[in-house]
Amino acid sequence: MPDASCFKLIESAVPRTAEGQILLRTKFLSVDPYMRGRMNDRRSYVPPFQLGEIMTGGIVGEVVESKSGDFVAGDFVVGNLGWQDYSAAGRRGVRKINSEIAPVSTALGVLGMPGLTAYFGMTDIGKPKHGETAVISGAAGAVGMIAGQIAKIFGCRVVGIAGSDRKTKYLIDELGFDAAINYRSVLNLRNALKESCPSGVDIYFDNVGGNISDAVISLINKYARIPLCGQISLYNEPQISTGPRLQPRLLTFSALIKGFIVHNYEDQFDEGIRQLAFWLKENKLKYAENVIDGLENAPKAFLGLFAGENIGKQLVRVS
Amino acid sequence: MPDASCFKLIESAVPRTAEGQILLRTKFLSVDPYMRGRMNDRRSYVPPFQLGEIMTGGIVGEVVESKSGDFVAGDFVVGNLGWQDYSAAGRRGVRKINSEIAPVSTALGVLGMPGLTAYFGMTDIGKPKHGETAVISGAAGAVGMIAGQIAKIFGCRVVGIAGSDRKTKYLIDELGFDAAINYRSVLNLRNALKESCPSGVDIYFDNVGGNISDAVISLINKYARIPLCGQISLYNEPQISTGPRLQPRLLTFSALIKGFIVHNYEDQFDEGIRQLAFWLKENKLKYAENVIDGLENAPKAFLGLFAGENIGKQLVRVS
Repeated sequence: MPDASCFKLIESAVPRTAEGQILLRTKFLSVDPYMRGRMNDRRSYVPPFQLGEIMTGGIVGEVVESKSGDFVAGDFVVGNLGWQDYSAAGRRGVRKINSEIAPVSTALGVLGMPGLTAYFGMTDIGKPKHGETAVISGAAGAVGMIAGQIAKIFGCRVVGIAGSDRKTKYLIDELGFDAAINYRSVLNLRNALKESCPSGVDIYFDNVGGNISDAVISLINKYARIPLCGQISLYNEPQISTGPRLQPRLLTFSALIKGFIVHNYEDQFDEGIRQLAFWLKENKLKYAENVIDGLENAPKAFLGLFAGENIGKQLVRVS
Repeated sequence: MPDASCFKLIESAVPRTAEGQILLRTKFLSVDPYMRGRMNDRRSYVPPFQLGEIMTGGIVGEVVESKSGDFVAGDFVVGNLGWQDYSAAGRRGVRKINSEIAPVSTALGVLGMPGLTAYFGMTDIGKPKHGETAVISGAAGAVGMIAGQIAKIFGCRVVGIAGSDRKTKYLIDELGFDAAINYRSVLNLRNALKESCPSGVDIYFDNVGGNISDAVISLINKYARIPLCGQISLYNEPQISTGPRLQPRLLTFSALIKGFIVHNYEDQFDEGIRQLAFWLKENKLKYAENVIDGLENAPKAFLGLFAGENIGKQLVRVS
């Protein structure tokens, strides 16, 4: 488990921009569970962070100086950049945000990576159909809450799993989930799931892994689909975790499990954002943000993800 | 682990046929690993066998009496029928065999359920592409040997895992596999696989499960596909087996695992048989049969599947 001592705040000069570049003042930075994986020195879908390097991640910034024909000062952009007050960026590293659709911070949430992750995982792998039952773990997180609402849009019964009564209440009262289970207070998760899913589980959108997933997968129906989005319960485990083997059940029920990362769908991002923005405008999608102020608090915000404190998208407001 | 005492040979009258039915004399019966699952009193994709019931499975029979306009005496048919010398069957339960394409016994092997299982699992889930590496477990079995040869037809590097040197030699010398590993004699299966799969594993066609699968899955590439066809190593385990959790690796490598049974593809059986018959005629597919004589030896043939004795399709010649 990483702690505050893994991070250091350093002062240096504002970066200088080359021809074709823009200078950005960071407004918001995003902290995400996947960043934990990059802290291991291990081959994965993105190279590991190097010691002493600036942390990088999703950033919303305002253009304060432009040497590019594509941007003017005052534009808002989103990109994968450093945890710093100012960044220099080229055309290819950033995307302009339409700030008329929704607040610019949503480019890191419902209209950004978390929203797109939920959208592609649920529609391309989950393939929800009217009348089916979808279970979402990590349901009050930035991805989970969107995934669950998308399943509702398709007419599924949607059951969320989350770690506090405040969260389960939010899922039911604010987002319209049909049921929600606090895995920390329930006596027997499998029994609670059985009660909330009287027709079994057709889709399991998994953000957490571990024992929670064991319980859900023990209740899947024939042709169930399991989009594998995250495994946050295992990210800080020093060893490969063991558990009941999945294959016999997947075989018996002709079920599918598929890992994915949002970047697999990079060439469909525009479509995804248009779709999410449409649902947002139609009031079919709601989102929540949890904002901490100050660049110096970014490590605290990141570590809070593993304590399960946030409802919705965890952001750091930098300026 | 079942044994001979689970079976009993009973004499009774030859069944009488009703209008529209045919009387079949059994020529061959098929023993298959999936039958073990039906011996558990547990919900699955087919109902469990009942105590005292006649065992059923794939049968090739000759029509000896026909009260149906669709058949004449001398026709050969295949269907899911009892382990008995004679059966009465209706039009819907059986399919006529074209005995000019290949020996009628192939309707229980390469041109029957095992061949179709390999065909749909490999093409619909495995989706082999030229230059990829496909690993097949249970590679010398009735399904595995066809699955591997189909991957060869698509231009994959094909590596088989089997349980004896006789089998691995057969896979390489007779079927043209690029490599084959005897998991029983190899010191370290993962190292042996690494050597045989220098570019990692893109497709893992799994018939066995357990530790063998753990080793293969630890070597998968990005976008790997794992058709889950059987888990024979676990069928006789009294409890749910545990092992390293799959999800972290599936997530990291955007990999897919999908259970299936051949009946999911029932409406495409004709297409599958035509395709397999074409490859057979073109000499792109070879098959092997292991025949035991006598209905009374059916239990022995079935139990032999779990001892891993057979190369190719295990059949019982009844008459």
